[in-house]
Amino acid sequence: MKIAICGLGTVGSGTFNVLARNGFDIAARAGMAIEVIRVASRRMNPACELGSTQFTTDIFAVASDPEVEVVVELLGGTTIAKELILKAIENGKHVVTANKALIAEHGGEIFELAARKGVTVAFEAAVAGGVPVIKALREGLAANRINWLAGIINGTGNFILTEMRDKGRAFEDVLKEAQALGYAEADPTFDVEGIDAAHKLTILASVAFGIPLQFKRAYTEGISAIAPEDVQYAEEFGYRIKHLGIARRLEHGVELRVHPTLVPETQLIAKVDGVMNAVMVDGDAVGPTLYYGAGAGAEATASAVVADLVDIARALRQGVAVGVPSLGHNPEHLNDLEVVPVEDVVSAYYLRILVQDHPGVLANVAQILSEHSINIESIVQKESEQHDGLIPMIMLTHRVHEKNMNHALAVIEALPDVVGKVTRIRVESFS
Amino acid sequence: MKIAICGLGTVGSGTFNVLARNGFDIAARAGMAIEVIRVASRRMNPACELGSTQFTTDIFAVASDPEVEVVVELLGGTTIAKELILKAIENGKHVVTANKALIAEHGGEIFELAARKGVTVAFEAAVAGGVPVIKALREGLAANRINWLAGIINGTGNFILTEMRDKGRAFEDVLKEAQALGYAEADPTFDVEGIDAAHKLTILASVAFGIPLQFKRAYTEGISAIAPEDVQYAEEFGYRIKHLGIARRLEHGVELRVHPTLVPETQLIAKVDGVMNAVMVDGDAVGPTLYYGAGAGAEATASAVVADLVDIARALRQGVAVGVPSLGHNPEHLNDLEVVPVEDVVSAYYLRILVQDHPGVLANVAQILSEHSINIESIVQKESEQHDGLIPMIMLTHRVHEKNMNHALAVIEALPDVVGKVTRIRVESFS
Repeated sequence: MKIAICGLGTVGSGTFNVLARNGFDIAARAGMAIEVIRVASRRMNPACELGSTQFTTDIFAVASDPEVEVVVELLGGTTIAKELILKAIENGKHVVTANKALIAEHGGEIFELAARKGVTVAFEAAVAGGVPVIKALREGLAANRINWLAGIINGTGNFILTEMRDKGRAFEDVLKEAQALGYAEADPTFDVEGIDAAHKLTILASVAFGIPLQFKRAYTEGISAIAPEDVQYAEEFGYRIKHLGIARRLEHGVELRVHPTLVPETQLIAKVDGVMNAVMVDGDAVGPTLYYGAGAGAEATASAVVADLVDIARALRQGVAVGVPSLGHNPEHLNDLEVVPVEDVVSAYYLRILVQDHPGVLANVAQILSEHSINIESIVQKESEQHDGLIPMIMLTHRVHEKNMNHALAVIEALPDVVGKVTRIRVESFS
Repeated sequence: MKIAICGLGTVGSGTFNVLARNGFDIAARAGMAIEVIRVASRRMNPACELGSTQFTTDIFAVASDPEVEVVVELLGGTTIAKELILKAIENGKHVVTANKALIAEHGGEIFELAARKGVTVAFEAAVAGGVPVIKALREGLAANRINWLAGIINGTGNFILTEMRDKGRAFEDVLKEAQALGYAEADPTFDVEGIDAAHKLTILASVAFGIPLQFKRAYTEGISAIAPEDVQYAEEFGYRIKHLGIARRLEHGVELRVHPTLVPETQLIAKVDGVMNAVMVDGDAVGPTLYYGAGAGAEATASAVVADLVDIARALRQGVAVGVPSLGHNPEHLNDLEVVPVEDVVSAYYLRILVQDHPGVLANVAQILSEHSINIESIVQKESEQHDGLIPMIMLTHRVHEKNMNHALAVIEALPDVVGKVTRIRVESFS
């Protein structure tokens, strides 16, 4: 099978190197050799030795090269990459991509063209790097009605939260280290504000529930507002704070949300630390399952790219395209479950309220919560004084509609003894 | 797609029920309805309502029924089940089975016939129940040279070890409870002596390394000799005792072994408790990954059976059989790596030596270990006296050839101050 790699950055060079190093084993599995006949990139990458492989800076040339059977798009971005992929499909080529933004935002259009042209567009590498979780959802769990999934799907964010917990460090401090280590970009917005995770969650949810890709409807909240004391108080209550992408099937719709979350420390996913990724998936037949591994890195991501290539080769060997639909469901069977607004989500909450240490404040706060049908599960008023007579009041609530919580917090924040905004973090126990 | 279910026990009825309940979603994924047209079993099962599905006690009739496209073998055992499967294949039918003993012991013969007849024999349900780990190894990680894998692949054993640790209970005591709960069979040998795990490990290793199935060469050691104090001492050293199946690729061969193992408590797999299963897989490109979920139970196992059926349906829709070879490698490319004898395995050890509390015993033991090139990592002599002046000496060693350890222990056990056999448990850190 003759392929072209477009983009020779981290993942592109990793893919080239894995195919070169493990070519013999990969051919034994795929039933044919996978040969890189073109590499197209703006510049060479010293991390890989191309040897006799033809190199070009003309990315679009490979999409019309009659010798190329599969175009591997590893450029990133949603403009040139999209144009390249559409052109390759138009020319009857299969496509493998690691581009989560492109699939989450334009996958519908791309898959539709691919279906018309009878070619495969594979994207295992777009979510959780080398962890084959798209395959698990689309094939391995095909018997199940998926109830919910929850994932640590951004390694940068998980590294930051892990360091904050292990060493009591502040967000900004760890972010700087992550940037120095190359875990975080110079502009970290995509990672720490949850946009990258929302792209991946959008893809996971579509495959899990058979709904169209709807990135714009995902609720997204980052981790930059998490304070070291929140990490510590969560711990005292028996929880870890993780930045999760959560998708849940309701009777009348689907929840799609990325936000910091308190998770009981006894849950396996609470113990996934550092840059590692993990996705929990709960199916009605199988129950809870979990998939764990490196979510980024040259060869981990290449592992998923090459797995997609092997799928295509195994199909080509039989003279067909890959028989698994892009979103796991045949297009005519995608359902129309609506993404519900975050105000309608039901969740438990962690609250940190900074108050003047006056008698009656606790009673006032409790009264307001009660009037909004919010039950308190536990409450701690810290004795240690901070900020001139201010003390933090920490509590966990039972599950409540987000709408009610919003109303209650508006009233609480207006109390004369309450200082500033209330910190609130959602709590999920996955039981 | 018209199928027959043979065997209506726990998994058979689970499969029938999942197909009935989720039939609409499954068809949306498979691209066609999966219809159970025959159920063959010695007796009916009140757990499922067959409705108009034709029931027969003649198991072999379905294997020659021209209407049946796929035979689902859920009888268990290696005699009638084998005969049924071979007959179904001879008649050009695809086969799905959950039968690990049969695949581990007779898979070679079965796959050979299936390849000749151009049909699929699928067995995802044979390992780790509903966790799609065969698919992960065979497809999702196809880019990798697999370095090693290690799994908690027997739920009964893990339940017993978890209870022993959480509650300080004795093996026999927990086993009785497991039997009462239905987690363990009346004859628990298969589970607690590691035979069931060795069947599953044999299958995992073949798919991972592309070697023929060699169940008879797997080293198998059970958990019935684990004492509550071993669990407790392991904990004091920062370890958990897990019953693991371990397969490791060496330059000149493959390790294949099932035994109790001390695992650092910081490892994710050490935290997999109760009846749950998990398999870690380390590939040269992807690094360590982990797959977790229910390893047994009616619907969890049915989840894997039905996933195999969906794979077959998606292929049939394109007019082909499933394009993935049974053991992940094309038969002509299976390699001839030998399973190495356990004496050649290199491992660290936990040792518990019961000694007379005389001066010089520790020095004697240390001297003997040193003479066999065994380095001690840490050692604890318990003060509390047991058994009339006897004290336990607990130690962790560095990695050493099993052969050396065997020789050293024979000498130590012959010391006049050493009482009885030395307890030894292998230690793996997976780093």
